[in-house]
Amino acid sequence: MYKFPHRNILDADQFSRTDLDFIIQKTKIIQKLFKQGKTFGMLRGRLLASLFFEASTRTRLSFESAMERLGGRVISTVGFQFSSISKGETLYDTMKMVEAYADIAVIRHPVEGSSRIAAGAVRMPVINAGDGAGQHPTQALLDMFTIEVEKGKVEDLTIGFIGDLKYGRTIHSLVKLLRHYNVHIIFISPEELKLPDSYKKDFKDSVLTYEETNDIKAIWDCDVIYVTRIQEERFADHKEYERLKEIYKVNKELILASKKNTTVLHPLPRVTELSTDVDDLPNAAYFRQAEYGVVVRMALLCLLLNVEIHE
Amino acid sequence: MYKFPHRNILDADQFSRTDLDFIIQKTKIIQKLFKQGKTFGMLRGRLLASLFFEASTRTRLSFESAMERLGGRVISTVGFQFSSISKGETLYDTMKMVEAYADIAVIRHPVEGSSRIAAGAVRMPVINAGDGAGQHPTQALLDMFTIEVEKGKVEDLTIGFIGDLKYGRTIHSLVKLLRHYNVHIIFISPEELKLPDSYKKDFKDSVLTYEETNDIKAIWDCDVIYVTRIQEERFADHKEYERLKEIYKVNKELILASKKNTTVLHPLPRVTELSTDVDDLPNAAYFRQAEYGVVVRMALLCLLLNVEIHE
Amino acid sequence: MYKFPHRNILDADQFSRTDLDFIIQKTKIIQKLFKQGKTFGMLRGRLLASLFFEASTRTRLSFESAMERLGGRVISTVGFQFSSISKGETLYDTMKMVEAYADIAVIRHPVEGSSRIAAGAVRMPVINAGDGAGQHPTQALLDMFTIEVEKGKVEDLTIGFIGDLKYGRTIHSLVKLLRHYNVHIIFISPEELKLPDSYKKDFKDSVLTYEETNDIKAIWDCDVIYVTRIQEERFADHKEYERLKEIYKVNKELILASKKNTTVLHPLPRVTELSTDVDDLPNAAYFRQAEYGVVVRMALLCLLLNVEIHE
Repeated sequence: MYKFPHRNILDADQFSRTDLDFIIQKTKIIQKLFKQGKTFGMLRGRLLASLFFEASTRTRLSFESAMERLGGRVISTVGFQFSSISKGETLYDTMKMVEAYADIAVIRHPVEGSSRIAAGAVRMPVINAGDGAGQHPTQALLDMFTIEVEKGKVEDLTIGFIGDLKYGRTIHSLVKLLRHYNVHIIFISPEELKLPDSYKKDFKDSVLTYEETNDIKAIWDCDVIYVTRIQEERFADHKEYERLKEIYKVNKELILASKKNTTVLHPLPRVTELSTDVDDLPNAAYFRQAEYGVVVRMALLCLLLNVEIHE
Repeated sequence: MYKFPHRNILDADQFSRTDLDFIIQKTKIIQKLFKQGKTFGMLRGRLLASLFFEASTRTRLSFESAMERLGGRVISTVGFQFSSISKGETLYDTMKMVEAYADIAVIRHPVEGSSRIAAGAVRMPVINAGDGAGQHPTQALLDMFTIEVEKGKVEDLTIGFIGDLKYGRTIHSLVKLLRHYNVHIIFISPEELKLPDSYKKDFKDSVLTYEETNDIKAIWDCDVIYVTRIQEERFADHKEYERLKEIYKVNKELILASKKNTTVLHPLPRVTELSTDVDDLPNAAYFRQAEYGVVVRMALLCLLLNVEIHE
Repeated sequence: MYKFPHRNILDADQFSRTDLDFIIQKTKIIQKLFKQGKTFGMLRGRLLASLFFEASTRTRLSFESAMERLGGRVISTVGFQFSSISKGETLYDTMKMVEAYADIAVIRHPVEGSSRIAAGAVRMPVINAGDGAGQHPTQALLDMFTIEVEKGKVEDLTIGFIGDLKYGRTIHSLVKLLRHYNVHIIFISPEELKLPDSYKKDFKDSVLTYEETNDIKAIWDCDVIYVTRIQEERFADHKEYERLKEIYKVNKELILASKKNTTVLHPLPRVTELSTDVDDLPNAAYFRQAEYGVVVRMALLCLLLNVEIHE
């Protein structure tokens, strides 16, 4: 009998294909229960510590919404308000304290690896909500769940990733999950922002196949198009940024020239890389992505707190 | 059969006299239920997104208290913590995201008209908690409800408005509501801070009558005195501000010289325009105003979420 | 029949020995009920206003956790977000407003004496969570409860206080409580940071005995060692601070040379005055202190809101 084997959610690497199938299955049940108004009460009396050492309103509200919709409660802190830290307290000590106050913690931190340090300090479950240039595993899980719901499967798909593949944390976490699936990925980016080799090495023993291109028209062949933002601060040359920003822009015209049922994803927030004229197309799934994020996080909170999810 | 016809609360202009009578009636029931400890549970399982793009602790706590006292839950964000905005996200996109997290939103925003944009982006109800120089309709409703409870009616009253009638957002919203009532208003202000003509034009087709004066002694004839703060930043000449500040100051002596049962209101916070020696007079209703604010907002939350209010 | 006689928690001075015995007894019951999952619901429908005019994440989260674990709800505000204050509102007016929104308030404020002003403005109970150089009575109560649980009693003990005894607010509050107990205190500090005479005068009519020393080896004789931080900003001479910091440092070696069952306490956060190599010794009780803090605050919230605590 399979039992969810994880105490924490720290890294997309930690999941086996069996884990992912299980998370998808349980999230679908949560989704159904939530629509029927039956989730409220599942985490009654449980307390989530929402620890955002750097601001990330979207992720914070998503987790807090997930906890509240399960009937749980939240204690929350954001950024420099975390006054003990400014007095020189270590993350280890902070977590020891938080463990006295809550049953589970979600942590966002500017320093890579800090969520692992946090988890090591305590017996309660810890969820990494993004640590520096590191992982953002629940974003990857919600992206995967979005593909599952929108396409009906995460198999036999061509998935295009566009934009900043070098620094984009969400993409790095998502491709780690996709290694477990029989999909073909097209990485579409300027030379300067290609996926780092370290990630490509990971693909060797996987069923996933991939190609790389700098031609945005490659999206025409994709079943799923995942758009990410190119950030100005990555470029020494402002003009080069302006030039590339215009090239790697997804708009209605491009989508209409693509496969009819192609699904457009974006982790949000978007700026100019994804035109608002795409919003009204049935292909636009990025606002639904936010909804899927809440149910995925509801499922994870239940799994980590050993609360059974069944219809 | 009357049915509350509003999906959002955006502007004091949106209400008919029938709407106002209905809101007053329902708020009185909520007030009774709350005193009996019966409101907790009315919004069980519902989630309010409390979005304060500029700080307004008083208004935020009032809405959050209203939601919690109905048994609902709140996810909340204040000011620059709203990190996606700082990355260039539009209000439209932000609201699309928030809709995935909550069932109703209250929004405070520094830019006039932004609550209407927010409401246009989503299917869930949106409440305007003040947008720039624009409207603050729930403040107007609670002011009206305060008059109703304190005087037993909102008819056949002489109401004096004192202070900054030019920029005072609360007054602008309240007079829009009072157009539906047979009241006489005395606008008392220095020449520089008179009510703008655009508001006076609105009175033409209404039952409301009014006069204007710069003499503070006009409050002697009023059944209700609504005091507002004169803000230093409105004056180029600091001395002129200092002079006027002293003239348009309501104190115990002035109130004792007024009608015996005159009721003193103030939207708070106050600084020097309303002396603390008024606090102990039975005429002082401004602290009770804050209590009425919570029950008015409780009623509005129920009405917008289609939860019936009955004894 | 004893009845808890306090409407507010403002000052460690307010408690009699009978009060302290009662608080310890009730906290032990809460502790048992909490472990049995029975506290959730005790404060259903009650609302705590968590007013932190200066940031103190540890204390804030502890109170909010206490309230949520009793099934109560929290409305919360931190620091400069308190926008009315920045407009010149007095604490009196702010509290009048908050009383309309909540059933009980906890207040942290940078100015000594402000919690008493806050309590004087309202009929609802107010808890002082630290006001400037003044009192922090709930910290003292949780320290006392920690001694009770860890040692099985607060009698016939030798208790050593180490570090900054001049400015340390937690120590000042705790010694006020210990005056009611038959304990011997050793105050261990550099000359510059000795306990002020005003506190020592208080000991005259009490059963407590004490001595003072600058020799850290005095901890060898203690049943309880309470370590506090020496703050750099107290010294004009940086070198003197660096010298003393090294002398008044508690580490594993010192603890192993002390009484076998000595208990090490610290109000946290710690920096260098308490080595992390102490953490793994059974003597280290400072992380458990945080847990005791939650149950003590749960008991106080119930007592002030007149909710009976019984098994």
